Amino acid sequence: MFENEQTKIINVHTSVTNTKDKHNKMVILFLNSSPHIIYPHFPYDINNLGRRLRLRLCKHSVNMTMNPTMAKQEQLILLDYWTSIYGMRVKIALAEKGLSYEYKEEDLRNKSQLLLDSNPIHKQIPVLIHNGKPICESSIIVEYIDEVWNHKAPLFPSDNYAKARAKFWADFIDKKLYQIGMNLYTTKGEKHETSRKEFMDCLKLLEGELGDKPYFGGESFGYLDVSLIPFYSWFQAYETYGNFNFDHECPKLIAWAKRCIQNKESVSNSLPALPKIFGFVQYMRKKYGVEE
Amino acid sequence: MFENEQTKIINVHTSVTNTKDKHNKMVILFLNSSPHIIYPHFPYDINNLGRRLRLRLCKHSVNMTMNPTMAKQEQLILLDYWTSIYGMRVKIALAEKGLSYEYKEEDLRNKSQLLLDSNPIHKQIPVLIHNGKPICESSIIVEYIDEVWNHKAPLFPSDNYAKARAKFWADFIDKKLYQIGMNLYTTKGEKHETSRKEFMDCLKLLEGELGDKPYFGGESFGYLDVSLIPFYSWFQAYETYGNFNFDHECPKLIAWAKRCIQNKESVSNSLPALPKIFGFVQYMRKKYGVEE
Repeated sequence: MFENEQTKIINVHTSVTNTKDKHNKMVILFLNSSPHIIYPHFPYDINNLGRRLRLRLCKHSVNMTMNPTMAKQEQLILLDYWTSIYGMRVKIALAEKGLSYEYKEEDLRNKSQLLLDSNPIHKQIPVLIHNGKPICESSIIVEYIDEVWNHKAPLFPSDNYAKARAKFWADFIDKKLYQIGMNLYTTKGEKHETSRKEFMDCLKLLEGELGDKPYFGGESFGYLDVSLIPFYSWFQAYETYGNFNFDHECPKLIAWAKRCIQNKESVSNSLPALPKIFGFVQYMRKKYGVEE
Repeated sequence: MFENEQTKIINVHTSVTNTKDKHNKMVILFLNSSPHIIYPHFPYDINNLGRRLRLRLCKHSVNMTMNPTMAKQEQLILLDYWTSIYGMRVKIALAEKGLSYEYKEEDLRNKSQLLLDSNPIHKQIPVLIHNGKPICESSIIVEYIDEVWNHKAPLFPSDNYAKARAKFWADFIDKKLYQIGMNLYTTKGEKHETSRKEFMDCLKLLEGELGDKPYFGGESFGYLDVSLIPFYSWFQAYETYGNFNFDHECPKLIAWAKRCIQNKESVSNSLPALPKIFGFVQYMRKKYGVEE
């Protein structure tokens, strides 16, 4: 198609927050004076070009053939419930990408028709509805957000092995941490003791994976950070009902959590305050007769 | 970096099996007579270039600065057990990409040190070891294979929403189908009846997702096909112990499974024959006292 054509590149690096990430490389070629955008995930979609590049295109007064959908406004709706660790993941990912969205709080005892229609299989929050299309399951939603809005704040490393590793630990969190964490404040006796041990084992493994890095993603905040940090909002409840001292027992993990909150507005704006979640857990324990 | 440089494109579409898939677009630019490969996932890695492009590079006798790892032979080892649905997924994905690998059958009652070292968290098969680095969890392995060897037989559609949808249903299979399927031949009485209903509900939902398409991936075999088709090797056991007639109850799904086996050598070479798995299940039922 392009073989032997004479070309001129007008811009390569645009909207690249991390210049080492090849995923975000964007290339515009002028082929016989007609601009051609080579962009791996969203070719020809003007919405995905950075402001500087759009200005540049205007400046060059290019005669660009646009897809009719290009100028369309993105519509994002998040169906969620404020205590949900999984919902927080989605909020953080949306904030990382600088996306605005309509937030709809669900009444989980009386779920909206929109939720039931959007997630008929699991009937669970969170659901992200993008231009009318629902995406369910928090990990899948976060991956979707990262792939669709890949011009900014990449959540995955460019190295495939590191990416698989981040997915492995996020999967570990989903399979283990949530249920064991819940057992800490809903069980008593032997089951409670077992859960205490299992919970601390999980945290130690995660602390080992963090090592001395500032974030699980290395120097930058990434997918595994997004997957784990919402649990921190539940830590006061876990600490109280699990009878832990996290500062003493997993200091690196706590330092990481505080670093996320301090350095990342996407996190501090998406997580409820610890006492709020603690109050919610107290209320649930009374309601279900675990405490009087 | 490249601004205003005069360039010449020598090749754009190479090793693209589906020309609509923008992920596989590959571009080589000559920048001041030096070749520069713009390739979203594996920049500068010659191993990921198709044969035709490599030949073309040789023909042009380019003086390319290579990473020392480029020319390295890929080493792939699969730790597996022959009845594993999850292991079959990995075998199919490897076969789709035309990759050869060393197969190591594990004794699950006496796991090898290599397995324990490679998957210390779950200690489970399958594990794919790529150049000494272990990747665990079948879905993550299949995604890894698809991303690393993305020059051939893409398993995901280029559309991000369709990709998220395929992941959703694969996740549904992992969360539901395996355990319910096992209940069909390990339980009796009320629990068995409940499992029968749940299992058929799952199959009906999956049949609905398939619709009238030849594959879950549409016209081509994809990620969700890879995720589900291994279950077919267990269908004789499910049918017998669940007292089903799948041909009658989910004819489209059975037609899809037969289509996969007939049309895809990657499938027919990776799945054990149905009577073999049935024999294995009979043996396990006797061993664990479900049948005499």
